[in-house]
Amino acid sequence: MTPGDDTPMTTHILTLTCRNRPGIVAAVATALADCAGDITEARQFDDPLTGTFFMRVAFRLPQETGGDGRFRAKMDGIGTAFGMEWHLAPQDHRPKVLILVSKFDHCLADLLYRWRIGEMPMDLVAVAGNHPQEVLSVNLPAGVPYHHLPITRETKPQQEAEIRALVEETGAELVVLARYMQILSDEMSAWLSGRCINIHHSFLPGFKGAKPYHQAHARGVKMIGATAHYVTEDLDEGPIISQDVEHVTHADTPDDLVAKGRDIERRVLARAVALHLDRRVLLNDGRTVVFPK
Amino acid sequence: MTPGDDTPMTTHILTLTCRNRPGIVAAVATALADCAGDITEARQFDDPLTGTFFMRVAFRLPQETGGDGRFRAKMDGIGTAFGMEWHLAPQDHRPKVLILVSKFDHCLADLLYRWRIGEMPMDLVAVAGNHPQEVLSVNLPAGVPYHHLPITRETKPQQEAEIRALVEETGAELVVLARYMQILSDEMSAWLSGRCINIHHSFLPGFKGAKPYHQAHARGVKMIGATAHYVTEDLDEGPIISQDVEHVTHADTPDDLVAKGRDIERRVLARAVALHLDRRVLLNDGRTVVFPK
Amino acid sequence: MTPGDDTPMTTHILTLTCRNRPGIVAAVATALADCAGDITEARQFDDPLTGTFFMRVAFRLPQETGGDGRFRAKMDGIGTAFGMEWHLAPQDHRPKVLILVSKFDHCLADLLYRWRIGEMPMDLVAVAGNHPQEVLSVNLPAGVPYHHLPITRETKPQQEAEIRALVEETGAELVVLARYMQILSDEMSAWLSGRCINIHHSFLPGFKGAKPYHQAHARGVKMIGATAHYVTEDLDEGPIISQDVEHVTHADTPDDLVAKGRDIERRVLARAVALHLDRRVLLNDGRTVVFPK
Amino acid sequence: MTPGDDTPMTTHILTLTCRNRPGIVAAVATALADCAGDITEARQFDDPLTGTFFMRVAFRLPQETGGDGRFRAKMDGIGTAFGMEWHLAPQDHRPKVLILVSKFDHCLADLLYRWRIGEMPMDLVAVAGNHPQEVLSVNLPAGVPYHHLPITRETKPQQEAEIRALVEETGAELVVLARYMQILSDEMSAWLSGRCINIHHSFLPGFKGAKPYHQAHARGVKMIGATAHYVTEDLDEGPIISQDVEHVTHADTPDDLVAKGRDIERRVLARAVALHLDRRVLLNDGRTVVFPK
Repeated sequence: MTPGDDTPMTTHILTLTCRNRPGIVAAVATALADCAGDITEARQFDDPLTGTFFMRVAFRLPQETGGDGRFRAKMDGIGTAFGMEWHLAPQDHRPKVLILVSKFDHCLADLLYRWRIGEMPMDLVAVAGNHPQEVLSVNLPAGVPYHHLPITRETKPQQEAEIRALVEETGAELVVLARYMQILSDEMSAWLSGRCINIHHSFLPGFKGAKPYHQAHARGVKMIGATAHYVTEDLDEGPIISQDVEHVTHADTPDDLVAKGRDIERRVLARAVALHLDRRVLLNDGRTVVFPK
Repeated sequence: MTPGDDTPMTTHILTLTCRNRPGIVAAVATALADCAGDITEARQFDDPLTGTFFMRVAFRLPQETGGDGRFRAKMDGIGTAFGMEWHLAPQDHRPKVLILVSKFDHCLADLLYRWRIGEMPMDLVAVAGNHPQEVLSVNLPAGVPYHHLPITRETKPQQEAEIRALVEETGAELVVLARYMQILSDEMSAWLSGRCINIHHSFLPGFKGAKPYHQAHARGVKMIGATAHYVTEDLDEGPIISQDVEHVTHADTPDDLVAKGRDIERRVLARAVALHLDRRVLLNDGRTVVFPK
Repeated sequence: MTPGDDTPMTTHILTLTCRNRPGIVAAVATALADCAGDITEARQFDDPLTGTFFMRVAFRLPQETGGDGRFRAKMDGIGTAFGMEWHLAPQDHRPKVLILVSKFDHCLADLLYRWRIGEMPMDLVAVAGNHPQEVLSVNLPAGVPYHHLPITRETKPQQEAEIRALVEETGAELVVLARYMQILSDEMSAWLSGRCINIHHSFLPGFKGAKPYHQAHARGVKMIGATAHYVTEDLDEGPIISQDVEHVTHADTPDDLVAKGRDIERRVLARAVALHLDRRVLLNDGRTVVFPK
Repeated sequence: MTPGDDTPMTTHILTLTCRNRPGIVAAVATALADCAGDITEARQFDDPLTGTFFMRVAFRLPQETGGDGRFRAKMDGIGTAFGMEWHLAPQDHRPKVLILVSKFDHCLADLLYRWRIGEMPMDLVAVAGNHPQEVLSVNLPAGVPYHHLPITRETKPQQEAEIRALVEETGAELVVLARYMQILSDEMSAWLSGRCINIHHSFLPGFKGAKPYHQAHARGVKMIGATAHYVTEDLDEGPIISQDVEHVTHADTPDDLVAKGRDIERRVLARAVALHLDRRVLLNDGRTVVFPK
């Protein structure tokens, strides 16, 4: 902030990844300063194991100078020089999001509520589920269509093709599996890789697979958790974005664990989606770099 | 408490397990009332899955009546009638404890400090380790012997026999593996079963086996944890007593995880040992029933 | 549980408070055993400072014996003998609940969702607020009326009389202030004392009064919290039922604290209400005794 | 990291504060790049309320170029141009630290253990206390002197003069009040301002003053906490560095709270001291900016 400065400004977010070497920050910061940009938040990570550099910069540019055009041109040069993958967009860009759900709608209800009160800066293009809308306990907001895409073992390829068509038609940039209890095919997982977030109802890597709360009860653990991760071809092995846990006791039945788990799942998924929407998650092979505020 | 009552009282703790059926609490409470006993704390658990009943009662008895003799006689009858396993001892009984350690002594140091200031009601009979005492950074309290029991692949049976002899000579009722980095043989584990607590440096069942913090780093988890459990023949599968976790980030190296893990390990182990010493942990097959205050 | 036993049983919950003295548990447990009752959960607390005894017992009775009539008769005698305050009701009794709200409806939305999926065993008789229903972002379930009770400095006594009338007409046993941003009069607080739960948006006793998140930001705290408590005449001083916190950083603006606070508030209030509905909270002067499962 | 690069490098840490304006990061990063510096970690904060900019940069410089001399010269110019307060030092600089203690030595014992195993990069110059060394349960490491500085109401000015002399003689850069139960005079607090960390045994701003755990018990809170803060003239009002809490129950006596509090206090103080030693804490008037790894 530059107090007293009345120039209208717009905020942009730049994220970039490249091989680490000296001068990256200087190049980007100098390009920004040349455009009268004012950095408001910057985070970077230099992975000592892989030699990869990750950066997220939020900055303000004077509106009169034609937005981010000049800076984008400079970044073209810098990106080429350093071999960067980079992404630049206005902070107020609201990504198009498709939510998939099955019968249990606690994560969906939570995301919808947060979206309604302005906590989730996304453009919710549709909700789809493998059950009729009537199974849901939550009402969809006006203007958000529900697509019933039933699935059986036999129709799985067709159903996934329908999801794929829906993603393409709606232009969804992110697909959220909000307790969508179907296992995506390898092909579908690969197609959605990096732009699909799943909530797994266990503290991965413990209790992979089905009925994790029952597994947790049988093992007698004293804490249960949930894991939000990007979908990749390896089921339950995608890059982890966020995790959380709660204490449980011997007196908690499997049903109690399911109930406690609902609270963990919804807050972990909401947090992961919010981090993603705010472009605070970068991929580092099978792991993530997360730059929270 | 009965304010105004000046009768000298001593406190005892009764724990019991049996098949659930009506009348257990009535029988025990009536026997206590007949002995002028005053219950100060009581917890029970009726496992709906197995039909087993678990109870822990702390109560005060007038000293003049000859301590717990009369009540013990009544419990003999009740125990037989209900097919109970039960245990009765004065609250101030301090179990004899042997601590095993390797090179890393953060858990040992923590237990020793807590013991010194009165937080750990145990009779510390000895510390033993597979390295010379000089590797430890902490000093042992006066009067607590250190036994150097070196081990190699070849001498493992003999070394375990030495530990066994030490347990028998000292009368240790509890053996604490305070980051004792040797894998006990199945025979030794079975021999110590139910009276030996281990701290595993991961949030079991995730990351079993060696170098869990390196496994956690490679997987990119966002939380790490530690697990205190009873030793049984199944390595890393013993009944869990206590677990805890902490958040970590992409910037944490494996060494950072090890350092963060030290804090988790020492508090989880201390908590498990304290719960055990206070007879707040009962075994329920491969799980535990824990009655914290 | 008595496996193999097919007798139809109903579960009841007994809570009691009295001056501590030997024999209370024996009397109650024996009465229960005489009625073929089977205790499924029991907790007690003997306050060493005040000499008061607190107990909660859940038990099953055979249906054929006429429900809890015989046991209730026995409790009449026991209650008189020990000078008890006691309360007995079937576990499936669903208390009538009235929720009050203002503009911010995150706590209301959360309670409604939990109620819809069966997490909140209450009979929701009405929602009332000092703003028109249109300000709410959440839809009320069919059959739950909304009462708009506007308030000004001048009309406060009348408005409170309207709430009072609503409580009486609906027979509400519990009033939940779900971020109802009006300060109740002393008279109203006294009238609702012990049957009204409020959520205060700070970690009491820190930051009493208005705009606690702004106070927290100004003070530079590193954690914020929320407190659910019974309403009493002393504003922000009522007996605390539940509290929780989250870490915050220097980068969190007051608005960020408000947003993070919403998550804390809704889970703390939901927990407190659930504990109350399950009769797990007993009053101990200005404090509470809480017996979680 | 620049894999394959064998140039010997040393790591330095730069912290700076100034009025925010565009170009700060560009100036610093360009100066670093000109010196062949490689940024390994950078964090910044732009306080929207005060217009103040805060930055911490860790970077590696080739050793052959004469260390940080050239960069320091450039920073002289940049610092003047931007009106910065800045500080530059090698990462392996170990600040001289004096620890003050009273009778309770759990925080001291914890700091000493962490120091011994290499977790606390400090040069521990002395420990001083107002009680004889014999009251401590922990042994001081060889080479660390203990100064007994008894205090009475009458001798307080002299005693504080002795502490002051000790700070000056030892060159202590940081004074840690590790449960030093004396209230420093305003004069002494002012003299130590910004270079003295205290652990307050409550979750400030709740329960200021004496016996906070007893206050917490009387109020019936469900969580207790501890606060590490810089000492300033305003007792219990200094800038907060770190806080943490734990759940407690009605069954916890004041003594139980004291015991649980010991665990919180020692980890909160250790964390605050480690953050300070690593130059991750910057002062922002009565608050702090903390850049954790």
